[in-house]
Amino acid sequence: MKIAYVVPGPMKREEISRRQLLLQQWANPGVTVEIIDVAEGPASVESMYEEYLGIPEAAKIIYRLDQEDYAAVVLGCAGDPGLDALREITQNVLVIGPREAGMNMAAILGHRFSVLTVTDSRIPRGHELALIAGLRSKLVHVRALNIPVLELAQNRSAALEKLVQIGREEVEHHRADSLVLGCMSMGFLNVAEEMTERLGIPVMNPVRTALKTAEALVMCGLHHSKKGYAYPPKLSSGKAKSLDDLLHKRTSP
Amino acid sequence: MKIAYVVPGPMKREEISRRQLLLQQWANPGVTVEIIDVAEGPASVESMYEEYLGIPEAAKIIYRLDQEDYAAVVLGCAGDPGLDALREITQNVLVIGPREAGMNMAAILGHRFSVLTVTDSRIPRGHELALIAGLRSKLVHVRALNIPVLELAQNRSAALEKLVQIGREEVEHHRADSLVLGCMSMGFLNVAEEMTERLGIPVMNPVRTALKTAEALVMCGLHHSKKGYAYPPKLSSGKAKSLDDLLHKRTSP
Amino acid sequence: MKIAYVVPGPMKREEISRRQLLLQQWANPGVTVEIIDVAEGPASVESMYEEYLGIPEAAKIIYRLDQEDYAAVVLGCAGDPGLDALREITQNVLVIGPREAGMNMAAILGHRFSVLTVTDSRIPRGHELALIAGLRSKLVHVRALNIPVLELAQNRSAALEKLVQIGREEVEHHRADSLVLGCMSMGFLNVAEEMTERLGIPVMNPVRTALKTAEALVMCGLHHSKKGYAYPPKLSSGKAKSLDDLLHKRTSP
Amino acid sequence: MKIAYVVPGPMKREEISRRQLLLQQWANPGVTVEIIDVAEGPASVESMYEEYLGIPEAAKIIYRLDQEDYAAVVLGCAGDPGLDALREITQNVLVIGPREAGMNMAAILGHRFSVLTVTDSRIPRGHELALIAGLRSKLVHVRALNIPVLELAQNRSAALEKLVQIGREEVEHHRADSLVLGCMSMGFLNVAEEMTERLGIPVMNPVRTALKTAEALVMCGLHHSKKGYAYPPKLSSGKAKSLDDLLHKRTSP
Amino acid sequence: MKIAYVVPGPMKREEISRRQLLLQQWANPGVTVEIIDVAEGPASVESMYEEYLGIPEAAKIIYRLDQEDYAAVVLGCAGDPGLDALREITQNVLVIGPREAGMNMAAILGHRFSVLTVTDSRIPRGHELALIAGLRSKLVHVRALNIPVLELAQNRSAALEKLVQIGREEVEHHRADSLVLGCMSMGFLNVAEEMTERLGIPVMNPVRTALKTAEALVMCGLHHSKKGYAYPPKLSSGKAKSLDDLLHKRTSP
Amino acid sequence: MKIAYVVPGPMKREEISRRQLLLQQWANPGVTVEIIDVAEGPASVESMYEEYLGIPEAAKIIYRLDQEDYAAVVLGCAGDPGLDALREITQNVLVIGPREAGMNMAAILGHRFSVLTVTDSRIPRGHELALIAGLRSKLVHVRALNIPVLELAQNRSAALEKLVQIGREEVEHHRADSLVLGCMSMGFLNVAEEMTERLGIPVMNPVRTALKTAEALVMCGLHHSKKGYAYPPKLSSGKAKSLDDLLHKRTSP
Repeated sequence: MKIAYVVPGPMKREEISRRQLLLQQWANPGVTVEIIDVAEGPASVESMYEEYLGIPEAAKIIYRLDQEDYAAVVLGCAGDPGLDALREITQNVLVIGPREAGMNMAAILGHRFSVLTVTDSRIPRGHELALIAGLRSKLVHVRALNIPVLELAQNRSAALEKLVQIGREEVEHHRADSLVLGCMSMGFLNVAEEMTERLGIPVMNPVRTALKTAEALVMCGLHHSKKGYAYPPKLSSGKAKSLDDLLHKRTSP
Repeated sequence: MKIAYVVPGPMKREEISRRQLLLQQWANPGVTVEIIDVAEGPASVESMYEEYLGIPEAAKIIYRLDQEDYAAVVLGCAGDPGLDALREITQNVLVIGPREAGMNMAAILGHRFSVLTVTDSRIPRGHELALIAGLRSKLVHVRALNIPVLELAQNRSAALEKLVQIGREEVEHHRADSLVLGCMSMGFLNVAEEMTERLGIPVMNPVRTALKTAEALVMCGLHHSKKGYAYPPKLSSGKAKSLDDLLHKRTSP
Repeated sequence: MKIAYVVPGPMKREEISRRQLLLQQWANPGVTVEIIDVAEGPASVESMYEEYLGIPEAAKIIYRLDQEDYAAVVLGCAGDPGLDALREITQNVLVIGPREAGMNMAAILGHRFSVLTVTDSRIPRGHELALIAGLRSKLVHVRALNIPVLELAQNRSAALEKLVQIGREEVEHHRADSLVLGCMSMGFLNVAEEMTERLGIPVMNPVRTALKTAEALVMCGLHHSKKGYAYPPKLSSGKAKSLDDLLHKRTSP
Repeated sequence: MKIAYVVPGPMKREEISRRQLLLQQWANPGVTVEIIDVAEGPASVESMYEEYLGIPEAAKIIYRLDQEDYAAVVLGCAGDPGLDALREITQNVLVIGPREAGMNMAAILGHRFSVLTVTDSRIPRGHELALIAGLRSKLVHVRALNIPVLELAQNRSAALEKLVQIGREEVEHHRADSLVLGCMSMGFLNVAEEMTERLGIPVMNPVRTALKTAEALVMCGLHHSKKGYAYPPKLSSGKAKSLDDLLHKRTSP
Repeated sequence: MKIAYVVPGPMKREEISRRQLLLQQWANPGVTVEIIDVAEGPASVESMYEEYLGIPEAAKIIYRLDQEDYAAVVLGCAGDPGLDALREITQNVLVIGPREAGMNMAAILGHRFSVLTVTDSRIPRGHELALIAGLRSKLVHVRALNIPVLELAQNRSAALEKLVQIGREEVEHHRADSLVLGCMSMGFLNVAEEMTERLGIPVMNPVRTALKTAEALVMCGLHHSKKGYAYPPKLSSGKAKSLDDLLHKRTSP
Repeated sequence: MKIAYVVPGPMKREEISRRQLLLQQWANPGVTVEIIDVAEGPASVESMYEEYLGIPEAAKIIYRLDQEDYAAVVLGCAGDPGLDALREITQNVLVIGPREAGMNMAAILGHRFSVLTVTDSRIPRGHELALIAGLRSKLVHVRALNIPVLELAQNRSAALEKLVQIGREEVEHHRADSLVLGCMSMGFLNVAEEMTERLGIPVMNPVRTALKTAEALVMCGLHHSKKGYAYPPKLSSGKAKSLDDLLHKRTSP
């Protein structure tokens, strides 16, 4: 089984290699995970504008992957940017959003989860994603670390301490019984595993929960619903032959 | 007061002129409405992919308008594509999404509204928009006309009859007491006005309700909340100097 | 366009003049606003009993206005007393409740609003109004100033300081991103404008948001739904000829 | 134990006698029920306006009863008009609204109830009452009989047949498992009992469920919460000495 | 009228006598209450496992009572263990769960109630019971006393002080306006009555509210819905002749 | 990795063998699945009473497994009987309920799912399970096949046709975009796979989705939350030494 992990922005080669190693190590036997980054996009996602920036290019790549032999695509951003569009334009490959996958696993493991995201600017989106997932009633809080995404790796131990502290507040004062990390960069730092240990509750590493959800669904022979994520009408009616035909450019001034 | 009506895709000059005339006619005395279309984007929005296609370019235009003397921007698509991002990146100009404005006006005028959108592919997004607006409990149904957006104008009377028929079903069988048209092209066909007459309930023309909401809020001295739609952290911290700095391109192969 | 502002209780002439001046100043060019108070009613509304006290008399006045050339009625109390009844008995004039209008504008401008009302006794009604408006999911808290309505004007600066303090708590500790003032007397003190400035979030002045909502809806050609607010059956069937016929008096002991 | 059944409008003496007999027959041993009607009010309640018409007078009577030795007041209208105000102004006597009591009993007996009200004009209020009661998730539908209240008694068998037919639809097509009659006049026709028999599900007679709820709560030593229904501030602060002081009259023209 | 109070576990004779006295004293004139305990079951219920332990035996007893002349069964545990099953298997006797009855009475008396349960381990179940009752929107918090059930009686005054303290927090900091005691042992200590006095809000004694709800429903001629709680298919089809036939034992190793 | 599949009732040896073969075939490489049935329990689960019948015995088995080297337990009934208790009493082994797992996978794959259960008697439990899972807003309907569980295997083709027919109604008339089979016996008939093919939407086979969810969570190093499913207080305090100590028997008559 081949799974593509698509990062909606450009990423350094070394970091891609580091992450690919981890993904491969977390994958089931017989599963190959390949990271594909997007030539143009945000350096990190700390605003909705940056989410949208990376979608059109990621879509083109995933549209192409859909015609190859990939079983699943895992989105490389835990804001699930453009998840709905990416599911609309694919007919064969399953597309998984890490936030959605992580929240559903938390919902299975407990009654009340909190989401820990990167910056305050991402808190309203966090609520919205829980609402859209239908899991608003299990969400306690969305809390922010307020360390920029790109500095997480340099500050692993500071980030971990702050995550543990916020997590502890959620557990002790607000009765959260599980946590969802809301950023893929956190996932590749292996902090979820230490937090689980120290806080005594399950903490979702969004990279691992997304990868395992993708594998599980593929092994069940399941694909995201094409009634729920319809193929774009202009493509299904044949008016457009490919994704490129959906983009129009002004010809006259 | 200057209001910009920003279409998230390229539009023919004649159609722009026709629409500008209507907008100006609907505007308050002393208000100038200017239509600005985007050089590259979808021909019409019938899928989430097409929504996302137009956002980055529309954002660049609105980011520029924010530094000029416009009081408000009305988005020219009733799917409210990228509304959250457009509000994040603006600090002076108020940004209004027509679906949100239309649903809130319907919510004021009655207890239960249905949304009439263009194609079945847009129904899940219709539910999502009501959910995000916090108005899910007042939404009866999202129903689709299933006439492609670009053919609406050529088939005004067929579209009107079908809208009246679906609207009547919603009123008589499902006790809807108001309707929201979910497409700006419907708005510029003046069908809402005839439907209001024939069905005896208020029908929101999304163009007019968005324009009037924009004017009303500006006249109240109100702007969308910058606590709710935070300026992107990379911009507020000065790490990026402008919107362009937020887009990264892969330099090495 | 003529708009009536109907106060559901008797008000001093000087105060009526002062308020009329402000209303006229806030109105669109071409709009005339007239304040009409009710001969018998509560001095201020701090309980449901006082809400109900003013409705029958206000209804009689609005029933009469409905037969004249008024385009809209704005209720002069932000508890929206009897809004449903006033909409039932009117067929031409649009009736606007300030709380409903203010909450819908807050819902457009942000994700989470708090309502600031006058006394603790009004907090349950505040929740109920958000529930009925369908906006419960966007409401953070209803908080009370606990300064009697009739003393607000004498204590403008104390009231403002307390409003700012409560508002700040809502923003900083509970992530409210907008505020709705829940009393018309607050509206005529112009505190919303100063609060907006000091707190950096939009604060709804219920007088202005109600007036602008009324103007906007009239200019859209929209009226509250008569399917949702049915004309009283005894009137529509002709069994009663006027509002007065709906009141029966015991004839025998 | 003395219970007052307060009709918010004038009622014929014979009808009062007929109803009093039934109430007394339904009451627990040792309970005396007394019907008190209001000298001025609606003939029947088919609109919100008619609800509000009867509240001020009913309040005055109940304010007086609160100072006598009544244990409870049952409101004589299943729209629960002014229930909140009546609870605010009482400190000793418990006030029960029949709709609220009936819906809570239905909620105990099953998972999904429908409300059968008199006229289409009352359907939105039916939804609102379920929402306020916190029981919206158990409500299936509010359906209307569309026989005027004042004609119910002359058409008992026609009304019963129609109630059975609508009830059967709710059970068979919509999986309602209990029904709440939404009108006291239905209650005094004993149709609930026959419907229960014929439909095989519990049907709440609002008169009996309200009376029994009142008796049960009194016997538990419980009173409606004065934190939730605060005594009006002007009364508790002593600015007003009685209910009458809360009504102001315009003195000058 | 005969009412059985069925304790889902074995109870000491003296305690049964003590409780029977109180129940009889709280019962209406003409009502006989009989306590029946179960030969095998939990000593007290502090976990879901202990809830389930007592259900099969309690069911057998109640199945037998259903064929005798009991009008109602009140479950002797405020976690309402197996309430749904006990209603399925009964066709004549009404079965009442004390938590459900208590929460519905609190819902009638106020807008916002908190539940006070025995141990932290019972808090998630407390939320679940409010959710199932359809009353989640009126629930403020479930709080725990953290005194083991079996030690409550020895520590009545300590328990009372802690209940008052937690209750006061709920009222003053979280605006609860009524409380529901979530344990029958608390009910038989008469603490609700003292709490009501000291806190100035209604506090549900689950024993009394359940008993009174049972009496009230029986006197209304109402039974739990057999559409909502269907008789087990194997029994209604005749494949099983009695409850015993529903239990299979492995015959071969 | 060893996974136990625990059937909460006795099952014939041949059927156990047949099911074990399928489970093993569906399991990941390296995973061993072992079926364990319970010596005493229901023949099939068509009522809540039958759910409860099997829990105490299943709990004893799972309590023992928790001390062995099993990584996960999958409950062998899609009503998830006693899931909460089984999670409370386990500290090492992860316990998975098939309905919860299936609904969460459906929630990931689409916006709106319907559950197809065996008999009408199970419909209210179906709603309750969706409510508890926090997924009520994504549930369209719970529909019943009304073929007894024990006859499903003899009537595979009839069952399949009826499932397809009901499924099609849900898709075409109610816009469901995925389905969850609500019975393990359906799962072992492989009908989900054919339904997916014929209806063009994902249909959850509860056996496979539960097994894959268990494997996925174990491979993520995650366990159900012990804050959400607390170890029974009598066990954690040491007052009881084992599960057996939690069951008390009446000693004196």
